[in-house]
Amino acid sequence: MAGNTGKPGESVTGRVFALLGAFDSAHPRLSLTELARRAGLPLATAHRLAGQLERQRALERDEDGHYRIGLALWEIGSLAPVSNRLRETALPFLQDLYEATRENIHLAVRDGFDALYVEKLSGHRSVPTISRVGTRLPLHTTGVGKALLAHADPNVIQSYVERPLVRHTRYTITERGRLLRELRATAVRGYALTNEEMTLGSCSVAVPIPAESGEPAGAIGVVVHSVRADLPKLVPDLRAAADGIARRLREDADGPTPAVPPNPPSRRSR
Amino acid sequence: MAGNTGKPGESVTGRVFALLGAFDSAHPRLSLTELARRAGLPLATAHRLAGQLERQRALERDEDGHYRIGLALWEIGSLAPVSNRLRETALPFLQDLYEATRENIHLAVRDGFDALYVEKLSGHRSVPTISRVGTRLPLHTTGVGKALLAHADPNVIQSYVERPLVRHTRYTITERGRLLRELRATAVRGYALTNEEMTLGSCSVAVPIPAESGEPAGAIGVVVHSVRADLPKLVPDLRAAADGIARRLREDADGPTPAVPPNPPSRRSR
Repeated sequence: MAGNTGKPGESVTGRVFALLGAFDSAHPRLSLTELARRAGLPLATAHRLAGQLERQRALERDEDGHYRIGLALWEIGSLAPVSNRLRETALPFLQDLYEATRENIHLAVRDGFDALYVEKLSGHRSVPTISRVGTRLPLHTTGVGKALLAHADPNVIQSYVERPLVRHTRYTITERGRLLRELRATAVRGYALTNEEMTLGSCSVAVPIPAESGEPAGAIGVVVHSVRADLPKLVPDLRAAADGIARRLREDADGPTPAVPPNPPSRRSR
Repeated sequence: MAGNTGKPGESVTGRVFALLGAFDSAHPRLSLTELARRAGLPLATAHRLAGQLERQRALERDEDGHYRIGLALWEIGSLAPVSNRLRETALPFLQDLYEATRENIHLAVRDGFDALYVEKLSGHRSVPTISRVGTRLPLHTTGVGKALLAHADPNVIQSYVERPLVRHTRYTITERGRLLRELRATAVRGYALTNEEMTLGSCSVAVPIPAESGEPAGAIGVVVHSVRADLPKLVPDLRAAADGIARRLREDADGPTPAVPPNPPSRRSR
């Protein structure tokens, strides 16, 4: 669940984020009752805080009185480095991959035990996928996830495989030893493959975005219909894109923060 | 309850959003001192709240101790209808436009007196623009901005032209009467044009995304190098994309709310 890391009640900030963290990609729209229950807050507290958040435009209400995340929060969130820096840098390279394939192109980062999807390009002809921007999917069932996990710290890999490996299809790898072998093979060959492990009918190929030190800065991947799959054919283009993104990220890391409008327009809240 | 004075502007929630609102696209990275000053908070208060926000992963600190917007806030923000609904729905249509032009493709909504950029697709060969996702630009200097303003409520247009019209280049329209004529012409022909009014060397064409009632749900536009410009040629493709997005938004509208509620809602019919 997004952001719901604090214990409700420990501080007002904690309660605010308990409330905001009640929303996730499966629950982007909540009634006050659902909001209070998911946040673990008394109804009166949830109501009062939600009112304050609505005044900040961090929450919005629709005509049925249900709450949604507000425009102001989206705008502030877009300033996070994952969007402002990684996504912006990667986008032209993702476009090239999209143009070459017309398939789903994904950019994801590892956050804890999840692949968090930062960007997704797809067209009318791409195979439908469940990933959306802001979605979390398992590391062991997705191409980008395997690419991220295979290059993670060995302790992260160990902790991951010690947890139950959730099955999504009959092809999901749920055996610890098999997943470890698969991750080693992935690290050795430098790209990850999945074959109907998340969704029947879809397969994927992904590569890490190399970082100067430590874990990859992210991973990029392509998801295609199983029947049209010649995945290793896509690896050279994916690698070229990942290397290009890594180079741009390095170049930017020295200079100051990226370009901004010369005349910042009027203030956010109006 | 400590810290909750009941005055909205002075509630803890108000202070939390004062702190978060200190970040904008020109200031995505702030020292504690800058953060406190821009938020209008005492240093000690800013420090304490920033610490709480860091524990919620709403803020992150980089190697130099500067604050940035955190991953958790980006993730929550991605659930806002403008991203989760409008952007997701529009993306395949934007991709088609990108493929047809290889130029900058923009999706923006009107928020107050600004065009707020919700998505931007661009490739290696597109003309550089200052727009980024989450950026605000003026309504009178940009293609998407003119398309949005031309179809806004007459009171909004009137209030807009009564403010000073900031000049960005020598081609920016800064005369009230001329802007009003331009907006009327835009509304009549159904598309907006700019010619080096925001940035020298760039021009643009944009159309509104029609909504069931009231103001457009957003606007989409293409920004190209002035020298390669045959902008009206792009209008049929832009219109087809805008109509396609509008149709999908209508189809989805059964449960969820419109991404950008046009007006205080009363009617929703099919």
